[in-house]
Amino acid sequence: MRLAMLFGPDFHATLAEDPQAFREALEEFHEEDIAEIVEELPIEDIVALFRVLPDEFGAGVLERLPDERRSEVLEKLKVEEAASLLAEMEPDDRADAVQELDEGLQDKLLAQLDQVEPEAAQEVRELARYAEGSVGSIMTTSFVGCAPDTKVWKALDEVRRMTRAGELESIYYVFVQAFGDKLVGVASLRELILADPSQELADVMTENVVRILDTEDREVAARVIAKYDFHAMPVVDAQGKMVGVITIDDVVDVVIDEATEDAQKMGAVSPIEGGYFQTAFFDYWKSRVTWLVVLFLGGFLTANVMQSFSGEIQRVVTLAVFIPLIISTGGNAGSQSATLIIRALSLHEVEPRDWLRVLGRELLTGLTLGLVVGALGFLRAYFAADAQAIPLAMVVSVSIVAVVTVGSLVGSLLPLLIQRVGLDPAVSSTPFIASLSDVVGLLVYLGIASTLLG
Amino acid sequence: MRLAMLFGPDFHATLAEDPQAFREALEEFHEEDIAEIVEELPIEDIVALFRVLPDEFGAGVLERLPDERRSEVLEKLKVEEAASLLAEMEPDDRADAVQELDEGLQDKLLAQLDQVEPEAAQEVRELARYAEGSVGSIMTTSFVGCAPDTKVWKALDEVRRMTRAGELESIYYVFVQAFGDKLVGVASLRELILADPSQELADVMTENVVRILDTEDREVAARVIAKYDFHAMPVVDAQGKMVGVITIDDVVDVVIDEATEDAQKMGAVSPIEGGYFQTAFFDYWKSRVTWLVVLFLGGFLTANVMQSFSGEIQRVVTLAVFIPLIISTGGNAGSQSATLIIRALSLHEVEPRDWLRVLGRELLTGLTLGLVVGALGFLRAYFAADAQAIPLAMVVSVSIVAVVTVGSLVGSLLPLLIQRVGLDPAVSSTPFIASLSDVVGLLVYLGIASTLLG
Repeated sequence: MRLAMLFGPDFHATLAEDPQAFREALEEFHEEDIAEIVEELPIEDIVALFRVLPDEFGAGVLERLPDERRSEVLEKLKVEEAASLLAEMEPDDRADAVQELDEGLQDKLLAQLDQVEPEAAQEVRELARYAEGSVGSIMTTSFVGCAPDTKVWKALDEVRRMTRAGELESIYYVFVQAFGDKLVGVASLRELILADPSQELADVMTENVVRILDTEDREVAARVIAKYDFHAMPVVDAQGKMVGVITIDDVVDVVIDEATEDAQKMGAVSPIEGGYFQTAFFDYWKSRVTWLVVLFLGGFLTANVMQSFSGEIQRVVTLAVFIPLIISTGGNAGSQSATLIIRALSLHEVEPRDWLRVLGRELLTGLTLGLVVGALGFLRAYFAADAQAIPLAMVVSVSIVAVVTVGSLVGSLLPLLIQRVGLDPAVSSTPFIASLSDVVGLLVYLGIASTLLG
Repeated sequence: MRLAMLFGPDFHATLAEDPQAFREALEEFHEEDIAEIVEELPIEDIVALFRVLPDEFGAGVLERLPDERRSEVLEKLKVEEAASLLAEMEPDDRADAVQELDEGLQDKLLAQLDQVEPEAAQEVRELARYAEGSVGSIMTTSFVGCAPDTKVWKALDEVRRMTRAGELESIYYVFVQAFGDKLVGVASLRELILADPSQELADVMTENVVRILDTEDREVAARVIAKYDFHAMPVVDAQGKMVGVITIDDVVDVVIDEATEDAQKMGAVSPIEGGYFQTAFFDYWKSRVTWLVVLFLGGFLTANVMQSFSGEIQRVVTLAVFIPLIISTGGNAGSQSATLIIRALSLHEVEPRDWLRVLGRELLTGLTLGLVVGALGFLRAYFAADAQAIPLAMVVSVSIVAVVTVGSLVGSLLPLLIQRVGLDPAVSSTPFIASLSDVVGLLVYLGIASTLLG
């Protein structure tokens, strides 16, 4: 509440008359909360605000603004102002912020940053080389790295010095680097505090360091960090040189983003970047139209199947009565299997090579589930029929057992196959599997019907 | 590879002949990797192994074993052995481990732990009071808490002492507690290092501390920590007393678990606890049968609708040909909307009170998507018809526009309604919405057909 009051009707007056008081009042709050209010303000007010905030605090707020808003601010500020804000940002956020800008402005800002803090400018250029979604693109390049013969007291001093300078995101570890910055060991802060200060790092470090390649997918990094409960993990390049650190707070964001992306893909929606209301209408529309049309064209097959059996339907119209029920049941069984398998694939509990075990389990599950549902279907059809009640009920129930089994098999094996050929099994899988089992379900049902009732 | 070799054919001989060497070899590896190999061994071997490992290291491995395996180990060890392993575990893991055991063994172990480390036993009893899924159930009770008049140097000393004792999971913050252990402030390690050592905590601390209630849902804690990029957050009880800390590594697990649970619920599967292959066949079967039957019984409605229109179908059998296509298109549009809205709800981008905005957006989306797909449907029906080509194509395309619109509206508004009445919108939503739009789709299509072709 109090924070919102600061940005009330007196906002302009206070900011103009007593910027010092305004700044001090603001500093009582978390940068995230300030960013949330600031992003709604007109751009002129935001720029005025950043001119008043101390650079370090302003950098924290800027890091937390949405990408577009952040770019606007950097564009409106003078190049010198923008560069000194950038200089105070975390290396990974700084690189992101610069990459979002027009190339012309990028060059100007980097040239200015070269004056203020040449190392930071260099880092931005290095981080810019990494592909989006790679470990390199979300790592930070600031960490404590020491030679193996560094004394423990000296390493602790270095941690203190860098912490004071505000350069460290993670202070848990000291990384030990040999010739060519090769990563050869790690020592936790705790181990260093416990060790004899006059020992060398080489004597106290752990040599067996879990590390990750800078070009690896950030999802892989998230998985490794979550598995080991690490707070930070070293990132190396192809030559084994340590180039950065990936920290657990980045991983939380990755995990949330990926879960959202997977959910959207499974629901036949192309992933959208922003939130539901943040996404512009046309982008939202585009994320849906492609899959809807693809699935619709695929659905033409059901019409073909129906046409080829239209003689049978004309003769026994009660057959048509159960078509929606039967195909949706097959689709539901398929969705269930697909959901379970796709999530298991993304958590690496199941791999494509396990297909035979999966097949066995799904066959048994499908048959037994089908028997339960098929028995209910028998009763429903028996009491619905005008004539030929028992043959019709037989056809319906046998078809249900078949579609539930086929749905389970398709729903589980298709994602394995898709992953095997190198594609993403989450893409549109549930509706796709539902459509496929619609066609298979119709073929099974009408095929059985024309044989048994024929 | 080398770790696997340690557990090769010579495993028993080495362990029996030279336990010291075996232990030293093991200590080179991460506890997580050891736990992964150990969990596959026969229980006798695991117990023999824990007898050889130093308690602190053993506790780390034990924490990482699956729940059932961990319980077995604690059951087979002597009470004294089990208690000294427990004494070395993290408080939250220790409480979990004890709670998984039979009540008789729980009492025995706690009685023994009362002897070894009474504080730990007390903590287990306190943590056991929290409901599963609450913040209290995943917090740790070990943190540095100091009075407001503590000098900075004294607080830093306390951090050092507790770090040495191995009691701290998170060393980033010192929490400032007033009378009655009320949380009044926080100081980060960095702030303390930068401050004058002779200052009092009250002078350097931040008073505006983001905190969370111990009875709150752990998902809420995960959201707050992810939002602010915290490494740890203080947990307070209803009286404002600080009772623990929740750390970011716990949050990663929460986020992964919740995403899995949501995905399973959306796929009409009751959440399963273990992995795909770890879950016993019957549990796996149970997770699916309820929803499959519920959806099947709901699908009876489609049969009712079909029956009441069977006269029309008999007369124009081509009508039946497009039934599967039309209802599945409505279902797909519904799945898309439901996926987007449910994820937005769980990330709190959208709230039930936004229903009017959602309705507006989905109405527009549904109509425009419907026009695209409906145009394709017109062509397909026109070329499929034997007679009355244009009226039939009209009926099909108008119906498609209607089902896509209705599907989008139902798919988006139903989850909002479900959340509004206090239920979980993820539960079985996609298939449920598909089933609902099957019924609505049939009513629309056959209703329009009987009016226009009638």
